[in-house]
Amino acid sequence: MEKTYLFAPGPTPIPPEVLLAMARPIIHHRTPQFQKLFRGVLEDLKYVFQTQQPVLVLASSGTGAMEAAVSNLLSPGEEVITIRGGKFGERWAEICEVYGVRSVNIDVEWGKAVDPQVVEDTLKDHPQAKAVFWQASETSTGVKHPNQELAQICQKYGVLSVVDGITAIGVFDVPMDAWGLDVVVSGSQKAFMLPPGLAFIALSEKAWARVEEAKCPRYYFDLRKELKSQSKADTAYTPAVSMIMGLRASLDIIKREGLENIFARHALLSKATREAMKALGLELLASESPSEAVTAVKVPPGVDGGAITKTLRDKYGVTIAGGQSQLKGKIFRISHMGYVSKADMLLVIGMVEVVLKELGYPLELGKGVSKAQEILFP
Amino acid sequence: MEKTYLFAPGPTPIPPEVLLAMARPIIHHRTPQFQKLFRGVLEDLKYVFQTQQPVLVLASSGTGAMEAAVSNLLSPGEEVITIRGGKFGERWAEICEVYGVRSVNIDVEWGKAVDPQVVEDTLKDHPQAKAVFWQASETSTGVKHPNQELAQICQKYGVLSVVDGITAIGVFDVPMDAWGLDVVVSGSQKAFMLPPGLAFIALSEKAWARVEEAKCPRYYFDLRKELKSQSKADTAYTPAVSMIMGLRASLDIIKREGLENIFARHALLSKATREAMKALGLELLASESPSEAVTAVKVPPGVDGGAITKTLRDKYGVTIAGGQSQLKGKIFRISHMGYVSKADMLLVIGMVEVVLKELGYPLELGKGVSKAQEILFP
Repeated sequence: MEKTYLFAPGPTPIPPEVLLAMARPIIHHRTPQFQKLFRGVLEDLKYVFQTQQPVLVLASSGTGAMEAAVSNLLSPGEEVITIRGGKFGERWAEICEVYGVRSVNIDVEWGKAVDPQVVEDTLKDHPQAKAVFWQASETSTGVKHPNQELAQICQKYGVLSVVDGITAIGVFDVPMDAWGLDVVVSGSQKAFMLPPGLAFIALSEKAWARVEEAKCPRYYFDLRKELKSQSKADTAYTPAVSMIMGLRASLDIIKREGLENIFARHALLSKATREAMKALGLELLASESPSEAVTAVKVPPGVDGGAITKTLRDKYGVTIAGGQSQLKGKIFRISHMGYVSKADMLLVIGMVEVVLKELGYPLELGKGVSKAQEILFP
Repeated sequence: MEKTYLFAPGPTPIPPEVLLAMARPIIHHRTPQFQKLFRGVLEDLKYVFQTQQPVLVLASSGTGAMEAAVSNLLSPGEEVITIRGGKFGERWAEICEVYGVRSVNIDVEWGKAVDPQVVEDTLKDHPQAKAVFWQASETSTGVKHPNQELAQICQKYGVLSVVDGITAIGVFDVPMDAWGLDVVVSGSQKAFMLPPGLAFIALSEKAWARVEEAKCPRYYFDLRKELKSQSKADTAYTPAVSMIMGLRASLDIIKREGLENIFARHALLSKATREAMKALGLELLASESPSEAVTAVKVPPGVDGGAITKTLRDKYGVTIAGGQSQLKGKIFRISHMGYVSKADMLLVIGMVEVVLKELGYPLELGKGVSKAQEILFP
């Protein structure tokens, strides 16, 4: 029998009712039926983003919305500050470079959160900077940056705060309006429990005011056109209809559980994972400021890092993630984001134990699982 | 009982086995399992595009691939020629404008195909032009342009031929390599029988040679990065995994029927539709050069054009399309593209008759249907 399990930080598992919603016969997008569906979806996205601003839906992966944030807010030659503490921090800087936007990069050791003081000092040194770009949760390292403090610093210096919330929105608390964040981006294949293919982006009024002035070229990701269309529950270009049908089903699940409970669940699952790994004598990459989306664990000395994910997947059907770029082979990452239960964590922690033991790491089987059980089922 | 039918030119109906393929549990995209699936999909896309060149898959609507064609081939200030004979011809020109590419527009009356001689004359007058942009099938008018002749003219003048094949590929014969087309774009929600959310683009060697020189900024739609990744059955950014699972199923259906049979079916369905409409005394918009994807019919005098599509949809569950932009209220469009059978055509033609009669158009019920029957079932 082949049975598989998904604990990678995206795509995450999809609830059967969401899969079935997407498998319904497709409807045409220029109809009252679709518009009614889409209007409700747009309204509920505001709940998840914790904003009164429109949350726009794009047919792309999350990177498309990141590009939209750059091309709709900035002009070539302008200066921004980018916090680079992982692969996705690098992505902000890469997009800026493509558009001729000068990015002053704050390089942070992968696995550490940025020091807010450094951001403040950089803003002092660069009074021309228009925006600060960062990841609410840096998926490649499992780090959570000090989001609220960073938002406050941006406000103090009058620059836009532009946040990649792809593995943060619907995972932990990033209240866009309450914290005064200017741009928040997310994607469908994380806490939204959908396949990849939809991206989301919300802008503050201050950010919208910049959109008309921005001179970077954009067509498919032109947020002015999307705002105009989506305010009428329409879209500028053909929307990913089936995905939006699935989003309706996943938003129903999210609303039923409620954001507070969702945040508490992710906090609990991530704590249990961290403590279980420590109980096995393993070191966490992001020990000081871990994200509730994904836990990055250092590969112990003497163990082949690539073999951990490969054996789990090919021998036991359990997909977790390895490290990316400079962390390749050095960490493995367990995601507890989205449609993941407390019981699921016993499975993945138990299977990580089995595989680590097979690969020669000395451990007492069940030690991580029992620590997780204590925390998850007190 | 509510039962609905889709005859709009995208999204088109989705076969149940494709819907079910997309409803299977999602898999991670950085796995041998996905790569094996994706490798097969990329190979079979070459069959559908009739090319030996790589066909790249993007997570976007077709417009994203149109933008990619402009931003990857051209530099600001360069000149191109655009055939504008409908809403999608206008789109090419709009994208060029956004990127500072000067578009010399050949305006063609909506409903007519371009005269190749005019294109040749325009190329003579504009020796600096780098490319000609057009629609193989202009969805907004139901016109098929003289694609092979246009390709030959482009070759004669050494300019790139860039073809929007969104409602052409998999509908009628547009053999990319045999005709020497340089860029062909398509999308998932037409003949590929999938939901919207995937776009496809293939480039000739000559076009690829331009990509390195092109200076327009692009990140999400950077075809250099996608070529590098997709040649290893990977993607630059997270792919729309479920859609690609569905594409596997729809390509199986396409291969089983075979391109020749598919083209013959579309030719027959479109001919039956045209003759049925004429038998009802109706006029076709694109009488001289009709596309096999969609038939555009003029709203007869005295009938409310908007009421035709609205009554069909709201009262009888049959979705066809109205006109767009300047043709709004003046035409209705019946699509026979993708997962549409001969029997389906009797349903939609019969229901169009019922509704036209209800709206006061004098016709003999069954006259269109019987004409279609004669053609479809000789």
